[in-house]
Amino acid sequence: MSAEKPSASFSVTIKISVPNAPGSLGKVATAIGNEGGDIVAIDVLESHADYATDEITVNAIDDSHAQRIRKALEELGDGFVVHSVSDRTFRIHQGGKIEVRCRSPISNRDELSMAYTPGVARVSKAIADNPVLARDFTIKRNTVAVVTDGTAVLGLGNIGPLAALPVMEGKAALFKEFAGVDAFPICLDTTDVDEIVETTIRISPGFGGINLEDISAPRCFEIEDMLRQALDIPVFHDDQHGTAVVVLAAMRNALAIVEKSMNEISVAILGAGAAGVAITQILSSAGVPDIVVCDRGGILHPDRSDLNEVKRDLADRTNPRRIRGSLSEALAGADVFIGVSGPDLVTREDIEKMARDPIVFALANPDPEIRPEEIQDVAAVIATGRSDYPNQINNVLCFPGIFRGALDAGATEINEEMKLAAAEAIAACVHSHERTPDYIVPSVFNKQVVPVVAKAVFAAAHETRVATR
Amino acid sequence: MSAEKPSASFSVTIKISVPNAPGSLGKVATAIGNEGGDIVAIDVLESHADYATDEITVNAIDDSHAQRIRKALEELGDGFVVHSVSDRTFRIHQGGKIEVRCRSPISNRDELSMAYTPGVARVSKAIADNPVLARDFTIKRNTVAVVTDGTAVLGLGNIGPLAALPVMEGKAALFKEFAGVDAFPICLDTTDVDEIVETTIRISPGFGGINLEDISAPRCFEIEDMLRQALDIPVFHDDQHGTAVVVLAAMRNALAIVEKSMNEISVAILGAGAAGVAITQILSSAGVPDIVVCDRGGILHPDRSDLNEVKRDLADRTNPRRIRGSLSEALAGADVFIGVSGPDLVTREDIEKMARDPIVFALANPDPEIRPEEIQDVAAVIATGRSDYPNQINNVLCFPGIFRGALDAGATEINEEMKLAAAEAIAACVHSHERTPDYIVPSVFNKQVVPVVAKAVFAAAHETRVATR
Repeated sequence: MSAEKPSASFSVTIKISVPNAPGSLGKVATAIGNEGGDIVAIDVLESHADYATDEITVNAIDDSHAQRIRKALEELGDGFVVHSVSDRTFRIHQGGKIEVRCRSPISNRDELSMAYTPGVARVSKAIADNPVLARDFTIKRNTVAVVTDGTAVLGLGNIGPLAALPVMEGKAALFKEFAGVDAFPICLDTTDVDEIVETTIRISPGFGGINLEDISAPRCFEIEDMLRQALDIPVFHDDQHGTAVVVLAAMRNALAIVEKSMNEISVAILGAGAAGVAITQILSSAGVPDIVVCDRGGILHPDRSDLNEVKRDLADRTNPRRIRGSLSEALAGADVFIGVSGPDLVTREDIEKMARDPIVFALANPDPEIRPEEIQDVAAVIATGRSDYPNQINNVLCFPGIFRGALDAGATEINEEMKLAAAEAIAACVHSHERTPDYIVPSVFNKQVVPVVAKAVFAAAHETRVATR
Repeated sequence: MSAEKPSASFSVTIKISVPNAPGSLGKVATAIGNEGGDIVAIDVLESHADYATDEITVNAIDDSHAQRIRKALEELGDGFVVHSVSDRTFRIHQGGKIEVRCRSPISNRDELSMAYTPGVARVSKAIADNPVLARDFTIKRNTVAVVTDGTAVLGLGNIGPLAALPVMEGKAALFKEFAGVDAFPICLDTTDVDEIVETTIRISPGFGGINLEDISAPRCFEIEDMLRQALDIPVFHDDQHGTAVVVLAAMRNALAIVEKSMNEISVAILGAGAAGVAITQILSSAGVPDIVVCDRGGILHPDRSDLNEVKRDLADRTNPRRIRGSLSEALAGADVFIGVSGPDLVTREDIEKMARDPIVFALANPDPEIRPEEIQDVAAVIATGRSDYPNQINNVLCFPGIFRGALDAGATEINEEMKLAAAEAIAACVHSHERTPDYIVPSVFNKQVVPVVAKAVFAAAHETRVATR
């Protein structure tokens, strides 16, 4: 499903020379179009009497599609010469996506003597005498470590710390672009829970917050708990809480559309990993009385003997009707389905058995638990994790603003109240008169989101007395 | 001694309102001058019919000096109002000295889908399949961790990781400004050798090099050795090797002035810490046959029972004449003195006992082992660690270029040959026709230095087969 239509996530730049004659470029465009390629831009690099060299940007489906396009162009014959077909995504990643920059120049002796020796000694001395001053005179106030062990990277699984680095760089880039937060990737060459915890604690003095990323469940729960206990700066596992906050925000607006209220609904969740656990937690905090969680073995209930500690705890705290069986049994009569599992695990018949006006969040990426096309006439509201359908549940709506607010408050943690406040703020970015089944969350490029979330989180930090500023 | 004349390392910005009448600013300038302050700039912030508000930048000696200047201004009387006296060094450090920036924008859906999900998954997949690609498509190729435990920060000693952060930020800023290297501070909340080593190893996947900084001796030796063994990226303790490289460069030019050659001289070194050990090592590698090292207990020789392992090893490898006694005995007849210890430990009489045309590197900071003024008529060449005397031995001449060269070569280590090449290159930046007793090392702002050092180090990495590019 992810490979069905051309998009910018797979796009190539083709450098080609063509005869400088009427119709040449038309032939090129036709050849690309015939192969199903989507031309985004044509730039003329040079134009000579007899030929021109152009750079053509084309959205394609995948590498083999790009190769087919290349072949079609090469077959255009005399005067048409393909010089290169380069992958734009790889080009953007060339050399890495972030850099470290100086905030003020060091170009002469005076600047050197203030920014470095001997002047810097006075600043260090002042902080040694009064550590609180580090918040004013170092990067700590605005800097977040993006910590991973590379065990659960996107849909790729355990690819290790080095291969995880491009994702962590992307995260750091988003932190900066969306919220002005300076984030730096820390890719750990260990998958041992205790080692991850102790390493993160040891490097923590220079950071104002820790964003855990792409660490596999159930290890991620333990790691986050231990770090939260040990550190007096915010620790936030985005795969859990970022997802949970945006799900709650979307659910608030979806419930408004179907005119149901949070404290009367039943929710079936498929997936008891990082996201599933955190979603269960935040929905409970938000007042949902009836949550049933399923893993691939079916409904979690206390009598199941195959559960790890986290799932056992989940079984104890959820499923108030003590139902048993498969996901189908959990969905019967449910108001909301939330999938954070894998592709094609839900059928149209499952959705048809839900209560009136079903809300379906099929969030598995890249391929959802059920394709929106299959249930458009059954479900009242549908959300996915993809950007090519309406209602994308995207963590980018949460983590920049929640850290912006926490750092501004000098918060010692990101607590449940701060997460609830963030969800409320995200939901409110879709005004009630704008709300439709296809618009329950704001766009990730809505400039309003980060400041509104940051403000709400800042206020919640103060209300719960975890703010130091 | 460090507090004798006004300099930019202690400078204040004074905001003051003065009557808008002829002679007002003259009174202000005179008052500042009478107190010994050095006016650097006067900026008019606003001018009204009856008064003007100015911002005056003044170099002072220290805080009490700035307070005296303030008092003198407050006593100017009617119409003169001092609003604030703010410390420029602290102002430069406000909010930290570095930031993380994106190398390409993420401002629309297409850019997001290439820099982050879903496009980034293809880049991560490619690296998982072929880890060498990380050099092309991540920050690793150009990124250095500046690792400290805060145990030996400048002259301040063991002030801890948080108070060390401004220094590490300054170092990172210099890496970028001088050599385009992206460096990031890692301040460790442990002083245990094994913990420092294992933590650095665990965070190493995302970095192309490790710059150890301000870690106390003798722990620093062990830590560097263990990390060099464990990692396949350059590990460089700048307090050792940066200093040693620049000392060797300066010595080459000093010896040329006094017409002596490296392989015939005797050198007395005071200080057996990080710098002393590394200087001894590099001078041996460069061919100096007779090196005597002293600590505060006098000359190191194998019969001393008070030596730690590192000093014992030094005693075995140096002092070929097996002399004993104090520094004075070591200096008798020596061609070169190198001090990396503390203030005022050498006398004029000591220097007078040296061989003809003594070379004196009194590098203790901020106060040298002997003041240059005291021996100007005795010593042929004098160098210090200070910028207000000629011949400043400053690591900034070395570390940016040596890492630039090592990263460009994809070097797996920084070996002795690369250090020697760096020293040679730095020395050669002072051309033979320019060389004088007051000009044996280039200025740290000489733009020629980094590229020349980087090129020499790159070549040496290839010659010694530690380059991967």
